[in-house]
Amino acid sequence: MDRIYDIHLKRDTKEHLYVQLYKIIKKQIVNGILKTDSKLPPIRKLANSLSVNNVTVVNAYKMLEENGYVYKIIGSGTFVNSLETEVFNNLVGNEFIDFSLTSIEPNLFPVDNFKDAINITLDRDKGKAFEYQEIKGFKPLRESLSKYLESSNIKASPENIHIISGAQQGIDIISKGLVDFGDTVIVENPTYAGALASFNMRGANVIKAPIEQGGVNIELVEKICKNHSPKFFYSIPNFQNPTGYSYSKNNKLRLLELAYKYKFYIIEDDYSSELNFNGDSNESLKSLDKQKKVIYIKSFSKVIMPGLRLGFIISPSILEKELLYAKHITDISTSGLLQRAFDVFLRNNSLENQLQIIVNTYKTKFDLVKNLLTKKYNNEMICNIPKGGLNFWLSLPSNLDSKELYKNLLKKGVVIAYGEEFFSYSDVNSFYRISIASVSESDIKIGFEIISNTIKEMLLNVNSKESINGYIPII
Amino acid sequence: MDRIYDIHLKRDTKEHLYVQLYKIIKKQIVNGILKTDSKLPPIRKLANSLSVNNVTVVNAYKMLEENGYVYKIIGSGTFVNSLETEVFNNLVGNEFIDFSLTSIEPNLFPVDNFKDAINITLDRDKGKAFEYQEIKGFKPLRESLSKYLESSNIKASPENIHIISGAQQGIDIISKGLVDFGDTVIVENPTYAGALASFNMRGANVIKAPIEQGGVNIELVEKICKNHSPKFFYSIPNFQNPTGYSYSKNNKLRLLELAYKYKFYIIEDDYSSELNFNGDSNESLKSLDKQKKVIYIKSFSKVIMPGLRLGFIISPSILEKELLYAKHITDISTSGLLQRAFDVFLRNNSLENQLQIIVNTYKTKFDLVKNLLTKKYNNEMICNIPKGGLNFWLSLPSNLDSKELYKNLLKKGVVIAYGEEFFSYSDVNSFYRISIASVSESDIKIGFEIISNTIKEMLLNVNSKESINGYIPII
Repeated sequence: MDRIYDIHLKRDTKEHLYVQLYKIIKKQIVNGILKTDSKLPPIRKLANSLSVNNVTVVNAYKMLEENGYVYKIIGSGTFVNSLETEVFNNLVGNEFIDFSLTSIEPNLFPVDNFKDAINITLDRDKGKAFEYQEIKGFKPLRESLSKYLESSNIKASPENIHIISGAQQGIDIISKGLVDFGDTVIVENPTYAGALASFNMRGANVIKAPIEQGGVNIELVEKICKNHSPKFFYSIPNFQNPTGYSYSKNNKLRLLELAYKYKFYIIEDDYSSELNFNGDSNESLKSLDKQKKVIYIKSFSKVIMPGLRLGFIISPSILEKELLYAKHITDISTSGLLQRAFDVFLRNNSLENQLQIIVNTYKTKFDLVKNLLTKKYNNEMICNIPKGGLNFWLSLPSNLDSKELYKNLLKKGVVIAYGEEFFSYSDVNSFYRISIASVSESDIKIGFEIISNTIKEMLLNVNSKESINGYIPII
Repeated sequence: MDRIYDIHLKRDTKEHLYVQLYKIIKKQIVNGILKTDSKLPPIRKLANSLSVNNVTVVNAYKMLEENGYVYKIIGSGTFVNSLETEVFNNLVGNEFIDFSLTSIEPNLFPVDNFKDAINITLDRDKGKAFEYQEIKGFKPLRESLSKYLESSNIKASPENIHIISGAQQGIDIISKGLVDFGDTVIVENPTYAGALASFNMRGANVIKAPIEQGGVNIELVEKICKNHSPKFFYSIPNFQNPTGYSYSKNNKLRLLELAYKYKFYIIEDDYSSELNFNGDSNESLKSLDKQKKVIYIKSFSKVIMPGLRLGFIISPSILEKELLYAKHITDISTSGLLQRAFDVFLRNNSLENQLQIIVNTYKTKFDLVKNLLTKKYNNEMICNIPKGGLNFWLSLPSNLDSKELYKNLLKKGVVIAYGEEFFSYSDVNSFYRISIASVSESDIKIGFEIISNTIKEMLLNVNSKESINGYIPII
């Protein structure tokens, strides 16, 4: 209960002190720091310790009561309500510490620069900005992307660049263009759930190759190739989703050799390779590809503005017809206005500047998490630390079920992504993903403390159950 | 050749007179008004008739020559080049009179209003405008749409409205959500090519019901239902694409009764029902539906801004799960910025105002075309005149092939949409579609003259071939 005295109210903002106090206590209740039925401090005592008027605390408590977070017992005081009631259902997203979100925080979006880009576009292009675009995308944008990609050692002619409405659409279009019912596709296991769903919807025979730090087992993939002649291999070679693992350069080259030998394509989903916090070698398969076997997908959503819904595919010319057809029957073309504005944004170097800001911001968080996982919580929060990206893939000790962890954490206001959804089958599993994309440093600390404690509680339960099963007490 | 003297140059624009003259003559060449190898007027004579300097004509002729539209014979004069050469390949889109485009002219787009809406949105929502949206769409937009639809007698709760990236995506998502391999779907024949492609890609068994003025033959549809238990019927009940035909109210009600009896859905593609130039009864199937069997698709692209890529589906609650899943794996969600800006646009009544402008503008064109087709060209351009919309569905006399007409017209700078692509099979057919969406009144007149003349030429060829076949001359 001491924590509640350790509150800092800001006197330099427009927000009333009692509203600030209300929010802070609510958060402590939601996060389980203040337990159900525990008593809040007496009004005068809290007011004194925070150097505020009694009225401030009275108003905050009143607001907490009106919103169902606390209840009053006349003559006794104010107590924390149970969050298992409907109060919990009324919680809005930002009350949670949400480690399941993979999009960066909205306050990092380059809103002003993009607004300028839109206005420049509309003043310049007027109605043309709202005409249908070429299916393949607005040509000047394809040209500026071609130029932009040079810095990543990717050579792509504007003719081979297809503008899409985000990476998920890229996967959908490639599935439509390339996958017929019964075709074999290989995926990493675990992998991005949206890709699995897309391949399954096309009736593909999806074969899974386990992913480890360093890449998939190339011998295993070769065995699959011999038996199934796959249409393609779907890969996130750098900072994979959900694991955060990266292929070694050697494994990247070996995978490419397999593609040449067994004549399959590699769909490279470049999910977040720019979030390379340690400057390690981080090449794309596309930049290493010598035989036009890589289809490269890149979204600007993840690390710029997720709701923008803009990305691109680089495809070998030979697949052009299939992809154009699939894009056309999917949504005709991507919003012309957004394409044109993004072109202006790109030509002003705003993307490079934005990426610099993002990398700087997240490096701090990344290092914090790395430190917590290797030094403080290394017994119960087990992780093979990635080299970059926003995701950490953890496993539970003693084969605890991550879906149970998820449920337990939800009650305490913490959200994780449990492993099940990244595998193409449902089974008890011990894995879960933590993304630091939209959680502040202080919330990371609070959240990890809660996760660690919850796992310890689960372990205690397991151990007591095991002892019950092992030594049945004689009553 | 007289036409070239009937040129009006504008002296109140920044464009040089010789450039204006160049463009006008080029257009006459491209459109076939000035025939190959015909002689252009002597410089002095044309300059006199236009009241310009000789230099103006000299420069225009020089520019025509440089661009390959004319050739000079020293001592003889300047002559029109053959357009079958590479010159033709260099023609850019806007040199054509293009009756194949179904989007309105960019100068009619409400650019300023939409720009305001975007700026209001960004100032208000900042980074939030670029966050992921609910899969179903930005809730305030769904609310304002719900309200907007009341004027069309459509009752739709915001919960049943799904925001999509244009009508084609609506068709794609519904196909993904509802159609499994081998399922039967019924379509009107002919129908929108993008819908056919989408159903075929899902492996559907597509059955065609011929469309006539007044609707499909209900008895025939009932027969299909008895034999195939269809998943759904895809219909454009008002101003159908490509035919422009509309269902009578009686046939609308009978189709709904069939849907209730045989338990199939009707996908209603509301393509352009607002372009109702004569105020006839024009109800949507959705507004008449009593048993939640209609899935309604509406795009704002067609008559507002095609490149905006925004629309919505109204779906019965029972299909919600399938549609959300399909939307999610298609592109996660539609651009948040565009949704929010469109919401502002809608709440400012800008949509209603815009539709009023569009209806007024196109009524004039529509009446012009109706007049030309019923009074001037009724022998060779045969059409069952629709009651609204932008499309006219014509047939050729003597079973001439519309693909031949298309090819012949292309050489003269006129583009039509030939019938083949609207049927689900390739066969010689005599139908073609003319859309007045992006052709000016004067170009409609020129274009129709060219089409009429071309058909007459084709008829002459057929007749001469027939006479050769019929009466073999003794040589």
